[in-house]
Amino acid sequence: MTDYAIGIDIGGTTVKLGLFSADTGDLTEQWEIPTRREEKGRYILPDIASSLHDVLDRLSLPLSRIRGAGLGIPGPVLEGRIVNRGTNLGWGRFDVCAAFREQSGIPNIKAGNDANVAALGEARRGGAAGCRSAVLITLGTGIGAGIILNGQILSGANGAAGEIGHFHVRDGEPEACGCGRHGCLEQYASATGLVRLARRGGLNLPELTAKTVMDRAKAGDPICLSAVSEAAELLGDAMARIAAVVDPEVFLIGGGVSRAGDFFFSRIRSAYRARAFRSSLDTNIRPAELGPQAGIYGAAHLIL
Amino acid sequence: MTDYAIGIDIGGTTVKLGLFSADTGDLTEQWEIPTRREEKGRYILPDIASSLHDVLDRLSLPLSRIRGAGLGIPGPVLEGRIVNRGTNLGWGRFDVCAAFREQSGIPNIKAGNDANVAALGEARRGGAAGCRSAVLITLGTGIGAGIILNGQILSGANGAAGEIGHFHVRDGEPEACGCGRHGCLEQYASATGLVRLARRGGLNLPELTAKTVMDRAKAGDPICLSAVSEAAELLGDAMARIAAVVDPEVFLIGGGVSRAGDFFFSRIRSAYRARAFRSSLDTNIRPAELGPQAGIYGAAHLIL
Repeated sequence: MTDYAIGIDIGGTTVKLGLFSADTGDLTEQWEIPTRREEKGRYILPDIASSLHDVLDRLSLPLSRIRGAGLGIPGPVLEGRIVNRGTNLGWGRFDVCAAFREQSGIPNIKAGNDANVAALGEARRGGAAGCRSAVLITLGTGIGAGIILNGQILSGANGAAGEIGHFHVRDGEPEACGCGRHGCLEQYASATGLVRLARRGGLNLPELTAKTVMDRAKAGDPICLSAVSEAAELLGDAMARIAAVVDPEVFLIGGGVSRAGDFFFSRIRSAYRARAFRSSLDTNIRPAELGPQAGIYGAAHLIL
Repeated sequence: MTDYAIGIDIGGTTVKLGLFSADTGDLTEQWEIPTRREEKGRYILPDIASSLHDVLDRLSLPLSRIRGAGLGIPGPVLEGRIVNRGTNLGWGRFDVCAAFREQSGIPNIKAGNDANVAALGEARRGGAAGCRSAVLITLGTGIGAGIILNGQILSGANGAAGEIGHFHVRDGEPEACGCGRHGCLEQYASATGLVRLARRGGLNLPELTAKTVMDRAKAGDPICLSAVSEAAELLGDAMARIAAVVDPEVFLIGGGVSRAGDFFFSRIRSAYRARAFRSSLDTNIRPAELGPQAGIYGAAHLIL
């Protein structure tokens, strides 16, 4: 009889869950539930535990067959278990593993920052499978990076490894970043940043999305082309700095924007090569492969 | 009877050697020899082996009492043994461990990049002793950084981890860096860079050194003050980016310039705090402790 591992990716809107075979690492069942952030997020972990038990009951799987559960958390995680505020879930500082252990009845619980956990997923089963080191950069509302070295997540002394969204890249930016500073990378090169650049360039469409900006850029719209080029330029430059620090085998780029294909990637690669140190010039830069499932894969691989 | 480890730090001018107790890690004997770079550096390793045998003979230590020797190499080292050009020793690509094993008769040889090896020394016995992660930035002719994570050297997929001297920090720089690009960090914040900034500011003394620039800055010379402030500003900003990537427990700054004390460090800290991500704001920034001995300590700790 096969044992299983649970991968849980807690997002601001939904919690994704996956059941993985401990033998093969394959995803055998996946589902999601809403993230109830009210009352300082107190329902989130009990909701997860209850949904998990429902699914295990339906599959007639006793807890003894569950080897453990991994949690991807949208914020810094210290020592693989302490949530240290900074999530958008309303949580304070507490031992998320101890709390979920009690609520789920599963003894083996591990946790990591969601960007880091997604990078682990990509490194074990996705775009960086077989690589010993990789950096996954996810372009969404913000920019998060997960760094894998020697096959393991790099968390950092303060849980802040990979916080490249707040690289200072522009002086004189009038708008403030979510972090309170001005001129952070994610103000330009995230999906949100791309829209902001296009609006600033003078494109005033209602409900403008990063995909629209990318599609219009491909069609030759000069405002959108300039926005995409600027985002790619700043991102490639940031990646050259990351390479000068950790020198990974491969860079993966995830998030919806990364589906824009070579139109976007060729610009990123060219900006990267213009700045990278000679030894790292040829580092691979390619799209992430697991998409929104990277988190549950990585969370399960905290256990597997 | 105690066993020993040998630490060897190969520089462009001299090779430093140290004999370390394998029990205590203490340095029991140190010496140096010139680095003969002629004929593509072919004499360097035989010179080291011969000097080492002389010392061991004098101390009546048989090779059987030597647990191994570590080599610090001024250039990228792949897989802990392959020198991949890029040294200033004239060497091509070869297995430096195999070569030195044969020449010295010592079976256990390990090698690493000199900046990385020095960082290992500081992390085991110097300014970062007791820390699990540290970044040592050495300000000399260039700028090298060694990164220690989980107590181990981070080399990078191409041996280029910590090559922060080539961070692009200024547009429009007319002079070229040693790497061929323009506007690299080490053009401003290395010891050489500091002198360059002071000369550019209009200070035209013969034989100007970084120490003179620092001393004159302390005495209130506006040109030198401006050079030191610019160097510290760019360095602190670069360190904020390094922290956003690897988030170390501590930054150590080494090289002669780091002896300038709080006058220099307070400026670096303030630039760092202006840019660092909030979780890493309070990361310690302090002088390295082992000075020019860091390399032999670290090289011995490749073995110990």
